[in-house]
Parts: sequence; C-alpha cells; structure tokens
Amino acid sequence: MADKIPYKIYLEESELPTAWYNVRSDMKNKPAPLLNPGTLEPMKAEELAGVFCDDLIQQELDNETAYFPIPEEILKFYKMYRPSPLVRAYCLEEKLQTPAKIYYKFEGNNTSGSHKLNSAIAQAYYAKKQGLKGVTTETGAGQWGTALSMACAYFGLDCQVYMVKVSYEQKPFRREVMRTYGATVTPSPSTTTEIGKKILAEHPDTTGSLGCAISEAVEAELKQDGYKYVLGSVLNQVLLHQTVIGLETKAALKKYDIHPDIIIGCAGGGSNLGGLVSPFVGDMLRGEDQYRIIAVEPASCPSFTRGRYAYDFCDTGKVCPLAKMYTLGSGFIPSPNHAGGLRYHGMSPILSQLYHDGYMEAVSVEQTAVFDAATQFARVEGILPAPESSHAIRVAIDEALKCKETGEEKTIVFGLTGTGYFDMVAYEKYNNGEMSDYVPTDADLEKSFAELPKVDK
Amino acid sequence: MADKIPYKIYLEESELPTAWYNVRSDMKNKPAPLLNPGTLEPMKAEELAGVFCDDLIQQELDNETAYFPIPEEILKFYKMYRPSPLVRAYCLEEKLQTPAKIYYKFEGNNTSGSHKLNSAIAQAYYAKKQGLKGVTTETGAGQWGTALSMACAYFGLDCQVYMVKVSYEQKPFRREVMRTYGATVTPSPSTTTEIGKKILAEHPDTTGSLGCAISEAVEAELKQDGYKYVLGSVLNQVLLHQTVIGLETKAALKKYDIHPDIIIGCAGGGSNLGGLVSPFVGDMLRGEDQYRIIAVEPASCPSFTRGRYAYDFCDTGKVCPLAKMYTLGSGFIPSPNHAGGLRYHGMSPILSQLYHDGYMEAVSVEQTAVFDAATQFARVEGILPAPESSHAIRVAIDEALKCKETGEEKTIVFGLTGTGYFDMVAYEKYNNGEMSDYVPTDADLEKSFAELPKVDK
Repeated sequence: MADKIPYKIYLEESELPTAWYNVRSDMKNKPAPLLNPGTLEPMKAEELAGVFCDDLIQQELDNETAYFPIPEEILKFYKMYRPSPLVRAYCLEEKLQTPAKIYYKFEGNNTSGSHKLNSAIAQAYYAKKQGLKGVTTETGAGQWGTALSMACAYFGLDCQVYMVKVSYEQKPFRREVMRTYGATVTPSPSTTTEIGKKILAEHPDTTGSLGCAISEAVEAELKQDGYKYVLGSVLNQVLLHQTVIGLETKAALKKYDIHPDIIIGCAGGGSNLGGLVSPFVGDMLRGEDQYRIIAVEPASCPSFTRGRYAYDFCDTGKVCPLAKMYTLGSGFIPSPNHAGGLRYHGMSPILSQLYHDGYMEAVSVEQTAVFDAATQFARVEGILPAPESSHAIRVAIDEALKCKETGEEKTIVFGLTGTGYFDMVAYEKYNNGEMSDYVPTDADLEKSFAELPKVDK
Repeated sequence: MADKIPYKIYLEESELPTAWYNVRSDMKNKPAPLLNPGTLEPMKAEELAGVFCDDLIQQELDNETAYFPIPEEILKFYKMYRPSPLVRAYCLEEKLQTPAKIYYKFEGNNTSGSHKLNSAIAQAYYAKKQGLKGVTTETGAGQWGTALSMACAYFGLDCQVYMVKVSYEQKPFRREVMRTYGATVTPSPSTTTEIGKKILAEHPDTTGSLGCAISEAVEAELKQDGYKYVLGSVLNQVLLHQTVIGLETKAALKKYDIHPDIIIGCAGGGSNLGGLVSPFVGDMLRGEDQYRIIAVEPASCPSFTRGRYAYDFCDTGKVCPLAKMYTLGSGFIPSPNHAGGLRYHGMSPILSQLYHDGYMEAVSVEQTAVFDAATQFARVEGILPAPESSHAIRVAIDEALKCKETGEEKTIVFGLTGTGYFDMVAYEKYNNGEMSDYVPTDADLEKSFAELPKVDK
C-alpha cells in the first residue's frame, strides 16, 4: 500500500468540500461568548453589526449548525487555487531516517502565500453581498492583508490595511503586493487614528502589535460609511472558513486509508490550527476516533503554554469585545527580534476551550530551532517555508526523530501554512548567524497579566 | 463538454512524462552546430568537456535521438513539484468578455518561482553522477540561480552563482534564498575574475548583463578542479529538459480533447518557450498538426524581431563557443530600466532555426503594457506573475481581445513561467507610475551588429 501513495495527493475538483464544518456544534462545552466591554454581557448580533457584516455575525454566534454551505461564488474562487495538495514528505523522511510517515497540507500555492485566502474571500464575499464599499483590517506578517487585498480586488471592494510597523519595515515588498491588488496600506501605530496617536504618544519607539493594529482598523471602520471591519484569525467565523483545510486533508487521507496519529499546526490566533484540526477534533468530540493534536507556538509569544485562560480584550486599544481565551494580556507586545507572525497576545476562543478541555497539547519553540527546521526542510523538500509554518515543521521533525528512537511507524500530519518569500530579512539574519532567541520572563508576563480586565465569568 | 473542464487540469503522477523529447530529431534543418571560437570548426565533445558534464554534452550534440529517458532520481525530484497545473483562465475570460478559451501552464509553484528547476535538477544530477564537487553558473533575474541552488542542495553539490548586478541590487532577497539553499552569490561584473575586472575597467558603471555573467562563471569553473559550468537557457540540453512542460501540457489538453489554436511563450534565451512548444512543433515538423506559435520578447531586448540570424558569441567575454542564432550582438546590454529577465542578447539555436524556417512568429512588447497585463491578470486570476511571464500574458490577452472582435472561439495556451514575489521593486515602480519604456534605436543595434564575428557559415 505504502508505495502506492503519491508524493502529492490532490482531490478532484468534484471532491472539494461544499460546506464548512462548525466544530462548536459538537462541543459539549461551547466556547465562552464575546462580552460587551461596557456591560460585560454577551454581545448580541445587533451590537456586533456596527463592526461586522451580517452574515458573518450569524456565523460568529451560531454554536449549533454543524455545516454551513459554501456559496457558489466562493467555491468558484476556491477552485482557482484549491484543492491544495497533501504532500507526502518522502525526501524529509529519508533525510531523517525515520520510520514515521510525514504528510503536510500545503496552503502556500497562492499569491497571498498562505491559508489566509480561505477566509479572506469569504469575508469579502459577504461584504459585497451586503452592498458595502469596502473593508478595513490589520495585518501582522502580511499574509492576511495580502489575502484580503486579493479577495477585495476580485469583488471590486476597497481595502484598507493597517500593517504592524515591524512587518511593514521588514517586508516592504508585502506592501507592494497589496498595492498591486489595489489596497491602501498604513503602518501601525499610525497618526491616522486616535488610538494610534495615543499609543505613539505613550510608546514612541513601539514596533507595533496586532492588538494595536486591530484597534486602528476598527476605529477607521467606524469613521467611514459603507465599511466594515474584517479579521483574519481568532474569531469563530474565521475558524469556520478555514475548516476547508481540514476537510480536504481528511478526504485526502481517507482516499488512501491513512489514519493520522499526530496532527500538528502552528498557532498564532488559531486560524490555521483551528481550520486544520476541527474536523479531526469533531471525531474526538463525537467519540469516533482519537488523535494527538499539537499546537506549536513561539516561545516569545506563548499564549497557550504560559498564558492565562481568562476574559481579555482582543485589541490593545480595548475597543473590541472581550473574549475568553488563553492570553498574555492585551498589552503584551512580543520582542521585535521575533520574525514573522504568530505575534498575537490571545488565542481563538474555540481552541482555547478545546485546549482547556484536554483535546489538544501545546508546545513552544524557540526561533533559531525553528529556522534550523525551516532550512533543513527547504533543502530536501524544495519549498521555502514561512517562519510561522516552520514552527510546525520543527515539532513534526522532533516527533519523527522520536519515532526513529522508538522505531514506531507513526503517521504525522502537519499544516504547512505558507511560503517564506517575503521573510528573507529573517532568513538573512539566520544565514548570517545573527538570529537571537527571546523568551519573556515570568516578571514580564505577571506585569501583563496584572492588566487583565476583572471579569467574573 | 466545456463546462466539464476543471479550473486546473492535473495529471496523475503515473501520467508524468518519463522521457524528454528532442525536437531536433524531427527537424529537417538541424540547428547549426556550436563553433570553436579559435578554429571556427564545430565543437567536438572532447572540446566541450572542459566546460560541461559528459552526459550533458551528449544531450547537447545529439540531433537524432527522439526521446531521452528521464533518470529515476530526477523523476523523484520532479514529483515534489510536478505535474504542474494547466489552468483554465475562466475568470480572465469572463473579465475580458472574450469567446476565446484561455489556458495557462503554471510553472511557478516551486520555490525557484519558475520553470528553471526542470533543467537545474537535471544538470545537478549529471554533475553529481560525474563525481563533481560543484558547479558555477550565472543568473539574471535570479530564477535560474535559485533553481540551481535548490538542485545542488538536494544533491549536496557546491553552487557558485554570478548574478547580474542590476538584479542583485533590485532583488536582495533572491540572494538570501540562494544562500538559504547553501549557494555563494557574487554580483557580476565582479573583481573575482579577470574578465569581470576587464569589463569593470572599461565600463565602471555597468549594471551587468547575462553575457558578462556567463563569462565570469565559465572563468571561475575553469580555475577550479572538480567544477563544471552549467547554464539555464539557450543550450539544446536545456530545451530538452524543459520539454517536460510541453509534454505535460499536451497530455493535459489531450485528456479533455482540447486542440490549441495558438501557443504563446515569453522568450529570453528560449528555455521556457522551447520547452513549452517543442512537442507541438514536433507535430508540425512531422506534418501531423498545425498551430500558431508566438514568441514574445521585450521591446528593449528584441533578438527575434530585430536581431540578426548569425554566428555570435554566447557571452560578452567571448570565451564561449559561437552559436548561430538570432542575436543583438554579444556586446548588447539592455537598458537597466527593463525589469526582470529576458535580457539575453541571443536566442536558442533550435528556436532560431525554427523561427527562420517559419514554424513560429515573434512579437515584441513594451514594459508598461506588460505590467498592465500582469496587474489585470493578478486581480482576476489571483496569481502575481513574474514580469517575464507577463510578456506572454500581454499577448494572450491581445489575442483574446481579437477573438472578442471577430467572435472566434479560439483556444489559446500560454506559459505562465513563474511568480513575481521577488520583482516587487518593478511592481512598485509600476504602482507609482514611474515605469518607463525603452526601445533601442536602429543606431544602437547597428553599433552592436558591427561587432558580430565574421563567420562564413
């Protein structure tokens, strides 16, 4: 059987998922609701309508519907770059001399360079359907902003992106890709918003954070008629859209009767991890199957492994609703020497609840070890991985090396979320031996935790 | 039938070509042989052995063998990124409102960002087989250097790249990709070679050219034991390896009974165009079928449309053999305001002979119009194309618009050779309205033609 498995498993277009899977429908303990920061009561649809599109609010709040049909227009766009391949890493296995079987779901074969397009096109579609002029958003490493620019270009929507300053400076070409797709890009914090001015006044040297860029994008949305705010991670709706990754992965594995023992994904806000693992976690929730699910996060921004499970603000400016999640505190800003994304202080409420309930493990890895894995992977598998994705590669390699010691033929599946073409400043540092690791001290975190809002829920 | 054609036609792994097609075997008028620049006699295998690997010399000189089996090790590597998709450009067709059916063969889904990997892995394989330590090469836009770095990393060979200075400066991140794969990258002209020093002394402000970088790479190879020189275009062996593109394209079209009316490729040295069209030209040479084949070149480096068909040096330093080809003269250096590749002064001898014999047409296009097409394509088809590839997009769109006028439902196939992630400096110029066109004057060309060697063949 094994030698019949091709290097790349592609589904047929007719096998593409036609509905997104809502893992909340199978969760006994539902993720805690978003709270109004003023009243501390669960946010209602009408309250969210000031910020989000109507259809997306329904998806955000619905904990019961198991499947949401994917609209035709979105399926049509998906077909331009999906199905994405599930790749058997034969060359990596050979290099590692491991009995483990390694697969990766590769989401980097589109211009956004990552899986972010899966939700961007959905969010742009619903904005268009609602008759909006445009959307505002933030972007960290730049994949989400690029994806949203592409999606908005496709539907003829205006796209305004607040880009975390450190990424804006390290990745000037990301900005040009977004501009090529017609978007406006502003480094954050900026002087175009009140919250941006305030943060700059308090921290003139800040390199920015996702939490801060979110505040600016929301403020910009509220000031303009015909605009809504969209977000590339954390939210339930985003995880829902991203389940197209996990559904395809499951279908591809099933085609060859492969049962994964370990499923690994990098975790920033949770969009990739949630999308990849939801259909498998669903099996576990329904008691139908069992897997080891591993979330991998950077040691410099360790929300799962060192964060608190508590209600917190989603943004630095504290204008967004509160979410119950594993968090480092909304004031936490990772060291600028950390490359790329995965810089968010919190974590998807769905994944937070699942982690809390024991459905997944989490590990944190340091930056140099991540780039060691990235380079090793690139040289044998060809693909130059994004730093974010390389967190998952690191742990996949570690697990494969454990199998080498024990002789176990485990099947490991990981999410290769994207490519590193716009991360060459980080690779240059690594190539020059100038990369450094940074782990926040307990005192750093305690200081940040002290700012958590007092919510008794 | 039409609505059954998927967005992307993928071959199965079992349908991958297992042999390269040698179009010379079907040519009545064989391409003219390479000449020894000293004796002006055809180069013999033993003379080429100082520069090239033995197996590659056989492939270079063999005008009779129709198919060369692809070695297992190369097929294994191909399977990491091949088959590449043949994409139906439904969204572009809709945008253009054309009755034409547009397909593109997309070769950008690998880290080198282009089709160059198809020959790089073959050349690295034969170098390894011959027991070499490493290879030297030149790169223009950087795709070839990246591809060769990847191939050398895979086989554990040292890789030394001379990169045309204008690209080295415009694309600093290309250098880091190559370094990530373990290569050494030197901007050309450099002071590391005699020819580099000479050119710098004569033209201290030169931005370099492929012809110059070739001279340096050959000199570097000759100075080191255990090294050979490899080249990413122009040569017969390169076109041979690249036929994997055309063979896959033909097989994918056949799967759905599609007959292409027009086949379009961008042309620099000819590697992509030759690889794409060879199997179709073979049909024409054997009198079995008919197609319109269109080569697209930049107006700033118009070897087919304004060059001479004559023996010329392949390099600026005049150390390489002479090739009979359409050429602008080995001293011709395109304007530095021309973005990206397609900067070579000459053209594949195979394609030159085919063009001379009327098997293909050629058009030249200006830069701004190329970026117009690139941006239009990106916004509807998602993929951010390389400037080189966008030459083909320009003409594909032009042909589709002609069909709109005439109402003809022609089938157009073009080669989308790569992605533009490392070309954002050029896109930035375009986005800022600062892109300029440049066309050499007749006087410029006459001056360059005056330097052509006097060869009576």
